[in-house]
Amino acid sequence: MSSPAENAVAIAQDLIRCPSVTPADAGALDALDRPLAAAGFTCDRLTFGEDGTADVDNLVAHIGSGAPHLCFAGHTDVVPPGDESLWRHAPFSAAIADGRLFGRGASDMKGAVACFAAAAIDYVAERGGQLPGTISLLITGDEEGTAVNGTKKVLAWMEEAKLVPDHCLVGEPSNPAVLGEMIKIGRRGSLTGHLTVTGQQGHVAYPHLAANPVKGIVTALAKLYGTPLDSGSTHFSPSNLEVTSIDVGNPATNVIPARAEARFNIRFNDNHEAEALKAMLRGSIGAALADSELTFALDFAPHGDVFVTTPGALDELLSEAVTEFTGKTPVLSTGGGTSDARFIKDYCPVVEFGLTTETIHKTDENAALADLETLTAIYRRFIARYFETFGDGASEDNNGR
Amino acid sequence: MSSPAENAVAIAQDLIRCPSVTPADAGALDALDRPLAAAGFTCDRLTFGEDGTADVDNLVAHIGSGAPHLCFAGHTDVVPPGDESLWRHAPFSAAIADGRLFGRGASDMKGAVACFAAAAIDYVAERGGQLPGTISLLITGDEEGTAVNGTKKVLAWMEEAKLVPDHCLVGEPSNPAVLGEMIKIGRRGSLTGHLTVTGQQGHVAYPHLAANPVKGIVTALAKLYGTPLDSGSTHFSPSNLEVTSIDVGNPATNVIPARAEARFNIRFNDNHEAEALKAMLRGSIGAALADSELTFALDFAPHGDVFVTTPGALDELLSEAVTEFTGKTPVLSTGGGTSDARFIKDYCPVVEFGLTTETIHKTDENAALADLETLTAIYRRFIARYFETFGDGASEDNNGR
Ligand SMILES: [Zn+2]
Ligand SMILES: [Zn+2]
Repeated sequence: MSSPAENAVAIAQDLIRCPSVTPADAGALDALDRPLAAAGFTCDRLTFGEDGTADVDNLVAHIGSGAPHLCFAGHTDVVPPGDESLWRHAPFSAAIADGRLFGRGASDMKGAVACFAAAAIDYVAERGGQLPGTISLLITGDEEGTAVNGTKKVLAWMEEAKLVPDHCLVGEPSNPAVLGEMIKIGRRGSLTGHLTVTGQQGHVAYPHLAANPVKGIVTALAKLYGTPLDSGSTHFSPSNLEVTSIDVGNPATNVIPARAEARFNIRFNDNHEAEALKAMLRGSIGAALADSELTFALDFAPHGDVFVTTPGALDELLSEAVTEFTGKTPVLSTGGGTSDARFIKDYCPVVEFGLTTETIHKTDENAALADLETLTAIYRRFIARYFETFGDGASEDNNGR
Repeated sequence: MSSPAENAVAIAQDLIRCPSVTPADAGALDALDRPLAAAGFTCDRLTFGEDGTADVDNLVAHIGSGAPHLCFAGHTDVVPPGDESLWRHAPFSAAIADGRLFGRGASDMKGAVACFAAAAIDYVAERGGQLPGTISLLITGDEEGTAVNGTKKVLAWMEEAKLVPDHCLVGEPSNPAVLGEMIKIGRRGSLTGHLTVTGQQGHVAYPHLAANPVKGIVTALAKLYGTPLDSGSTHFSPSNLEVTSIDVGNPATNVIPARAEARFNIRFNDNHEAEALKAMLRGSIGAALADSELTFALDFAPHGDVFVTTPGALDELLSEAVTEFTGKTPVLSTGGGTSDARFIKDYCPVVEFGLTTETIHKTDENAALADLETLTAIYRRFIARYFETFGDGASEDNNGR
């Protein structure tokens, strides 16, 4: 019989061999469903879709019943491999070389999904299938995409099915370089805006007959750059604005264009709330353009809320397990990008710990076999300690909500 | 026998019927060459070209010899008509309707070329072919294009042929709305720049690992906008900067791009000299980016020099003729775009007077028949008065150089 670590590598290889570039599933959920079902998990496959989006397959696997309910959340979809000829090992071959498992998704995050599945299967086997609560895996195929037909809808389904977890561990790669250095306990909010400034086209030699929207967009953006959003908070670094593109597309050097567009993204901390931030931006841009003949439109993509899981028993348990197998004391961070934890935080406390981010979304993405082994051990210890801590007879003080 | 005005309309129609969109001649120079040669002008056809440009046909027609030498400069090439289905009358049909001559080039500037040719032919006929000096027409087919194989090379040829004029009248449309309101006595310089700011690509959630060139280009351009170039001079309005395009072309709202580009054009007055202006811009942008990890490149297209013909006898003669036939006192202006006068000013004093700019480069370009008649009369009177003023026996004080 294979060890949990061996099992984790085998499941990870099976997953990587499925080219599940969002929104394709390509057999990935089957590859996960199979060992979980064999271990006694009830597997519900959920296909969601809506107008203008591709249908996406998702999986909820659960075992046991009642509280405490620990949910592991992750995704089996991956970003495209890019030019496959640049990869040392074919991106969906799951090659093992130099002590590493290569392939798209190895670190983000088929590796961690496999580690948790193997750890949970081992825990369930040790308990002879009798759990002091519930373990579930919420696995989506729509994390790297629009995230419209994934975790958000799965959670609504779980609520309907009376399967709302008490606590959640997201397995996204959380460590910048070395396994054990960082647990994520929250995420900044994300707001993407699209600014269009409209003026009056004309000839550069007759500027009084025109109104140049490029000057307007530069003035408005300079004003935004010149107004810091805040100086950080207890758990967060300062909010940050990045203008990601300005586009005019005017090839004629003697023509003042009629329109200029900019796209920007703000990662904001808990000093802000998205709607107030939008109103502030609108006011600021309006003031910058007040003395001009220019008009503007400001649109926003659906935003991600800021959230933080107040440090407590949940992250402490996870930290202890991390320290036990890595010797490191993980930093509790709210940095980095968004994850589906932004949906989960509306249902229960959520923390994030997975592999490293060093090779994610890159050519030759990989995970060290030693890290897969260590992460499986961390997850395995966390599961056991979770039920000891939050199960029957555990002190109320420890419920961590 | 037809009147000079009738002759002007007939030549203008012949010219408009040639679809001489730069660099095509399409028979336009033949259409002009024919009546001039018939009136006794010596016509030299000059084809110029160089690597990377299309060959262009040009014409120098001259009659008489020696000083004073009055040159009329113009072009028979036109800008493209755009969507011909939008024209009320086909752009190369030279239709006459509602007292107007319709067609591409009617105002810019086949109409004025025809008016001067008709006026000169009439003057020559009245003198029985005996002139008290020289009249020439410098007609290029490369004014609306790159202007590389046109006026500049023709002038060099004229110098070689000992045909350098003493004074020049450019027939570009000079009146904003009504014939007679404006004579151009100079032009602002024109400097087109291309700014590229290079940074470090990255993810918006990890800005400390990236360097955003969009912030750099906004900061640099805001600095340029915030530093007025001057407040004008005796003959010129203040110099003006227009940024005509900013382009990043980054479709990913979560990615900080590696590069941002801007194009700008400065119309500068006689407070500046192009090389000093370039150095100032380079210094200003460098200072704006000094605290960043960004680098920049600043390139310039060949610039147009600023120039002004100091008001004197030449513009006075022209003003008198304008006032006589329009009742207006023309303003002496240096506004508007560039013209080939920027090349001519290196050889002799140059003034500009032609039709109106209202419909130039637009759909349904046209010229009022009444304006063609009046312009022919103005040119005819100006030619006669020119030789009276600058010819033998005229006072030295009047030579206007
Ligand atoms: Zn991920
Ligand atoms: Zn012109």
